[in-house]
Amino acid sequence: MEWEDLARDLSTETSSKIVLLVMDGVGGLPAPGKSELEAARKPNLDALAAKAVCGVSDPVMMGITPGSGPSHLALFGYDPLKYQLGRGILEALGSGVEVGRNDLVARGNFATVKGGLVVDRRAGRIPTEENARICARLNEHLPQRDGVEVRVFPGKEHRFVARFTAEGLSDALADADPQKEGKPPLPAAPLGPEAGKAAEIVNRFLGDVAAVLQAEPKANAALLRGFSKFPSIPTMQELFKVRPAAIANYPMYKGLAKLLGMEVIGVGGETADLFDALEKSWADHDFFYVHYKRTDSTGEDGKFEAKVAAIEALDPFLPRLAALKPDVLVVTSDHSTPSCLKGHSWHPNPFLLVADTAGVDDVAVFTERACAKGMLGRFRSISAMPLMLAHALKLQKYGA
Amino acid sequence: MEWEDLARDLSTETSSKIVLLVMDGVGGLPAPGKSELEAARKPNLDALAAKAVCGVSDPVMMGITPGSGPSHLALFGYDPLKYQLGRGILEALGSGVEVGRNDLVARGNFATVKGGLVVDRRAGRIPTEENARICARLNEHLPQRDGVEVRVFPGKEHRFVARFTAEGLSDALADADPQKEGKPPLPAAPLGPEAGKAAEIVNRFLGDVAAVLQAEPKANAALLRGFSKFPSIPTMQELFKVRPAAIANYPMYKGLAKLLGMEVIGVGGETADLFDALEKSWADHDFFYVHYKRTDSTGEDGKFEAKVAAIEALDPFLPRLAALKPDVLVVTSDHSTPSCLKGHSWHPNPFLLVADTAGVDDVAVFTERACAKGMLGRFRSISAMPLMLAHALKLQKYGA
Repeated sequence: MEWEDLARDLSTETSSKIVLLVMDGVGGLPAPGKSELEAARKPNLDALAAKAVCGVSDPVMMGITPGSGPSHLALFGYDPLKYQLGRGILEALGSGVEVGRNDLVARGNFATVKGGLVVDRRAGRIPTEENARICARLNEHLPQRDGVEVRVFPGKEHRFVARFTAEGLSDALADADPQKEGKPPLPAAPLGPEAGKAAEIVNRFLGDVAAVLQAEPKANAALLRGFSKFPSIPTMQELFKVRPAAIANYPMYKGLAKLLGMEVIGVGGETADLFDALEKSWADHDFFYVHYKRTDSTGEDGKFEAKVAAIEALDPFLPRLAALKPDVLVVTSDHSTPSCLKGHSWHPNPFLLVADTAGVDDVAVFTERACAKGMLGRFRSISAMPLMLAHALKLQKYGA
Repeated sequence: MEWEDLARDLSTETSSKIVLLVMDGVGGLPAPGKSELEAARKPNLDALAAKAVCGVSDPVMMGITPGSGPSHLALFGYDPLKYQLGRGILEALGSGVEVGRNDLVARGNFATVKGGLVVDRRAGRIPTEENARICARLNEHLPQRDGVEVRVFPGKEHRFVARFTAEGLSDALADADPQKEGKPPLPAAPLGPEAGKAAEIVNRFLGDVAAVLQAEPKANAALLRGFSKFPSIPTMQELFKVRPAAIANYPMYKGLAKLLGMEVIGVGGETADLFDALEKSWADHDFFYVHYKRTDSTGEDGKFEAKVAAIEALDPFLPRLAALKPDVLVVTSDHSTPSCLKGHSWHPNPFLLVADTAGVDDVAVFTERACAKGMLGRFRSISAMPLMLAHALKLQKYGA
């Protein structure tokens, strides 16, 4: 019996509502003296902490720095050591490509082939605008056969994502990339009998690309790597019987949320957009994931003051959130992004939870050091979902 | 290597004594302002906390509300996600039916059969006294065959527990219950070849019941569901090399303790009875589980003041406990039962441990919020047993 089995058995549909506000990468370090959260003026966040129970959470385990994929999976109640997302899927999500359960995706390069040999694996790093033109041309002229839908999505320079949509496509395919120049292009080889159909479709695509692009001076062939399928992962509906919504601006988070069965409510880049969307969709869902990106991007850039400003910019919106009277409100982060480290880190996330059934502890400010003294103690982020569901009275008793 | 293996390898017999006092369901919630423990006047409990190390424990995992079975298993050092107790066993334990390692038990209904069909699955909900009379008659007149002992135990109205005692009985049996009226009674079908003997014995019993009860106007047949064996679970002696005793009043806790190999010392419903029994049996055991029920039943009833009174009623007895000078004394709960929720909850248990080897932390009152700041931090209840054994110097070093 594991958490997922418990969740399936014990979760129950109710009308109670949960809001999970993720201030991406908000945890930081004193550098020196005060951390970003300690330096920020944020009266509304602190007021929430004062009526909450607080704690700190480790995304994967102590000492492990997670990417955005594993750290978000954990927050949504999925074991980040059990579910791993393939490179192709992450590339697709990061590029804003929608990926569904019948999709096979791969990272692509445009390349130059001459005399049957790959002479440039990156097609001379064609400009990004060239790439967009070529992808548009392919999407217009690639023959669609046998009900298989194929689309390409431009990335930077010579990079793109290829997406094949059909029933029963396996991702057990070796890379269709000779890796070295001076060799002939390599077809996608099936790694097992179940991948025969996928190999055939991919290789026909590679031929079609060469045919459509034969007059191009540089980008006249495609190489494909990291074939990945939509991971076999239960939806939040299946596991938790919630009707979840994701309110986010960046493709990666929207894509991940969609993978887990959330309805994605895309918004613009203004902070107000998040709260407008939340208010508008309030009646339609009972679990809301709201993603605030700027605390992470400023941390990644190593800009302490900008990260402080990002915290202060969010703070005035919190009363709008509280006014909706969610039954459970959690404010936390997926992982820490101390600006002095200019990247994700292994430090635990400050965490606050407000609910009628939660009581209150002595923590009165939302900072790393204060939350570490909170009543929730230190826990793994995968416990956030059972906690939220419990406080929303969405979990029944285990055993008699 | 898991905890159970470590326990077997490292535990050692000593003369030191452990007392585990379970104030069932004592953890609560501020409703509002103060929790039950915060509102109660309990100088002796607080004095213990002041010389203890404290913490809070999650019975199963954060967010999970446990029944009494899983939450007690955890306190006794058994993984509550590994060992699950069947419904038949719990029904038997809850009814005060003793269950041993060769027993197969099932939940029964008396039913009315006419013309070969079940016409009433509940025999018109016969009065409980009727049920007692019928069970007595069956126990007197049922033929005992081939060294198989069969007994029935009356429950409320038409419900009873059937117990079959013989070597090698499997519980892989489908319910002997057509579920619907208007159908013929259903014999118990074996779900695997190992259950052939059990099916034969159960079906012979069903025939015998019909024969003995043929003149009864309503209860003239039996239906059986939820066949369960004594779970295959190592005893506390095997795992921990202790000589354990359970001092309890309610059948469920006595039954569970017996399952784990404890000597059960049944007591009356007065609080003093617990301490009388403890003093009397002090020389004979080295692990004492003392179960105080009233904090849970008042919580279940939603009676805040009565739960406060239950805490205050226990407090004056604690000096008698300390006077015995146990080497390790733990006071905690199996799960929380906040009176505002009128039932078990997922909130962690306050926990205090007094031992010469434990030191003392800053916690000076026994409440949820105070214990959450204790030196033991937040841990899963399954760690209570290793902690108690360690402080009693009953665990040797792991590795060289």
